[in-house]
Amino acid sequence: MNSGLIGLDWGSTQLRAYLYDGQGQVLEKRTFSHGIRHLPEGGFAAAFAQAVEHWPDVPVLACGMVGSRNGWLEVPYLDTPTSVDRLAGALSILVANGRTLHLVPGLRDPARPDVMRGEETQVVGVVAQSPEVARHGCLLLPGTHSKWVSLREGVVAGFATVMTGELFGLLTQQSILGAQLPPAVDDDHAFRRGVSMARDSGAAGALSCVFSARTLMLDGVLAPSSVSDYLSGLLIGDEMRIAIAAGWADASSSVHMVGEGALCDRYLKAAEMFGLTVHKAPDATTSHGLWRIADAAGLITTQATA
Amino acid sequence: MNSGLIGLDWGSTQLRAYLYDGQGQVLEKRTFSHGIRHLPEGGFAAAFAQAVEHWPDVPVLACGMVGSRNGWLEVPYLDTPTSVDRLAGALSILVANGRTLHLVPGLRDPARPDVMRGEETQVVGVVAQSPEVARHGCLLLPGTHSKWVSLREGVVAGFATVMTGELFGLLTQQSILGAQLPPAVDDDHAFRRGVSMARDSGAAGALSCVFSARTLMLDGVLAPSSVSDYLSGLLIGDEMRIAIAAGWADASSSVHMVGEGALCDRYLKAAEMFGLTVHKAPDATTSHGLWRIADAAGLITTQATA
Repeated sequence: MNSGLIGLDWGSTQLRAYLYDGQGQVLEKRTFSHGIRHLPEGGFAAAFAQAVEHWPDVPVLACGMVGSRNGWLEVPYLDTPTSVDRLAGALSILVANGRTLHLVPGLRDPARPDVMRGEETQVVGVVAQSPEVARHGCLLLPGTHSKWVSLREGVVAGFATVMTGELFGLLTQQSILGAQLPPAVDDDHAFRRGVSMARDSGAAGALSCVFSARTLMLDGVLAPSSVSDYLSGLLIGDEMRIAIAAGWADASSSVHMVGEGALCDRYLKAAEMFGLTVHKAPDATTSHGLWRIADAAGLITTQATA
Repeated sequence: MNSGLIGLDWGSTQLRAYLYDGQGQVLEKRTFSHGIRHLPEGGFAAAFAQAVEHWPDVPVLACGMVGSRNGWLEVPYLDTPTSVDRLAGALSILVANGRTLHLVPGLRDPARPDVMRGEETQVVGVVAQSPEVARHGCLLLPGTHSKWVSLREGVVAGFATVMTGELFGLLTQQSILGAQLPPAVDDDHAFRRGVSMARDSGAAGALSCVFSARTLMLDGVLAPSSVSDYLSGLLIGDEMRIAIAAGWADASSSVHMVGEGALCDRYLKAAEMFGLTVHKAPDATTSHGLWRIADAAGLITTQATA
C-alpha cells in the first residue's frame, strides 16, 4: 500500500481532518467544532488527538489559523509574489502525540499590507484543478473576510481583503440600521435594490449611502424584515464596486469564485448586475490544496505498485 | 418684561433645556441624561416637567428625536429643498403639564433618501449667525451620524449622512480589528496614517483597505494601542474622500463645521490633509436655531418697552 497523508484545515471555528490514500483520494473526512477559538479541554493537542484517532501513521499537513499568533504555533507569513513551491518549502514543524505536523505558512501582500491564512491553500487547490487560472486569474473567496486574489504566470501576485461578512454582521446585529428589527425574510427585490444603490454610488461608495437602509424603512419603501437583504446587497455590491475601482476585476475577464451555497449565489447575482463574469471554481479546494502542497514538499512517498 | 421662550434640544441620549429672555438671550441652561432612550419613571411628561420646573409660562419649542417614531409625538419630515420659514410653518403641537409644546419637524432629502432630526435646527442657528453661509454654503456636522448639508439661496438644498461615528464604535469595540486590544493611546502619527490610507484608496475607498488595521498591527508597524487612532483617521479620512467624490465639498470653497472639542479637531486635521478649507461655525447653534424658528413661527411676542 502506498503512503498517504492526513490533511487538517484548522480555522477559527472549525477543524476539518482529511485522510488521503497514496493517490490523493480522500478516504475519510471528519469535522469538529474545535476551531482555535473553541478548543476542548487539553487544548490543541487534545483536539488533534481526537481528529486523527485510529488513523495510520502518515505525514500530517495543516493549514489555517492553527498557524496564527493565537494558534498552536505561529508560522511566519510568506510575502507575495509567491509560488506553490515556495509555500511547500516554508513549512513549519511541530511534534505532538508522537506525530509530526507540518504547518502551511499564510501569505502576506506587503504592498497593501494584507494577510491570509488558509485561503492560500484553497488557491493552490484551485490551481491544481484548473491550471489555466494560474496564468492570469482573479480568484474571489467570499466570506467573513472576502479575499480577492490575483494570479500571474503561476504565482500569487497579490491579494486584498474586504470585510464584507463581518461588516454585514455588525450592521444588522449591532447598528441603528439593523438592531431591533423583526426576523429577516428573503427579499430578492431588496437585495437587488441594495446592489443597485452601491453600483450607483460611484466613487463615493456605499458608506456614502448606507444610512438609506434606515430612511427607506422609515419611508415605508423597505419592510423592516427586508432591511437585512438590502444591506446584504449594498455591501456585496460595494465589494464588486471596489473590485472594479481597484482594478482587481474587470468586465473583460472572468472571476473564479471559490465557495458554495447561498452566499455564493448572492455574489453571482451581484456580479451579474455589475457586468462581471464569475465562474464557480471546483469544489473541495482546501483538500486538493493540502495534497498539492504536501506533494510539492516531498511528504508523499509514492511506492511502486507490486 | 418681554415674553421669552423655552427651547428644548431633546435627542437620543440627552435633554437640554434653554430659558430665553424676550431678546433671545439664554438666561439659564439645564442638561439632563433623559434622552428619549433614557427616560425617567413617568416617561416624557415627567422628564419634561423636571426640565422646565419653576420656569415661567412662556412658549415651548422642541427639536430632535423627541419628534421621531420612538419619540413623544411623531412629527412628519419636511422634504428638501426647504427654508427656515417652511420649518417654522410646520410645527406640531402637543399639550402636557398645562404647557403647549411646539415640535420642529425633521428634514428629509427625497433624492437619496436621507433624514435628519435636530440637525435642521443647528443649520438654522448657523444661518442666523452667518447669513452668508445660506447663499452657497456647505455645512459639516460631525458625529455618530455625520451630516453634510448643502445650502443654496437661503434654503437647505439637500444633505447626506455618513455613519462614521457609529462605524468607528462598531469596528473598535466589536470587530476583529479592535476588540481585545489594550486601551487606546493618543497617536497623531497613526491617525494621519489612517487619513492618508483613505485618501490614497481613491475610488475604491477605505472599505477596500480597512483590514490593514490588523495587518499593520501584526507587522509590528502599528502598536495595538494605536489601532483606534488609525481607524479613526481611516474613517474620518474616508468621510472626506466621500464628500469630495460625491461633490458635497471641493477644494475651491469652504466647509463650515458645526461642533466643538476633540472630534472637530480630528476633522480639521483630516480636512487639511485633503486640501479642504474648514471653518468652525459659531457655537451654540441649536439654541440660536430654536430662537430663530420660534421667531419665524410667531411664538415670540415682543412687547414695547415701557
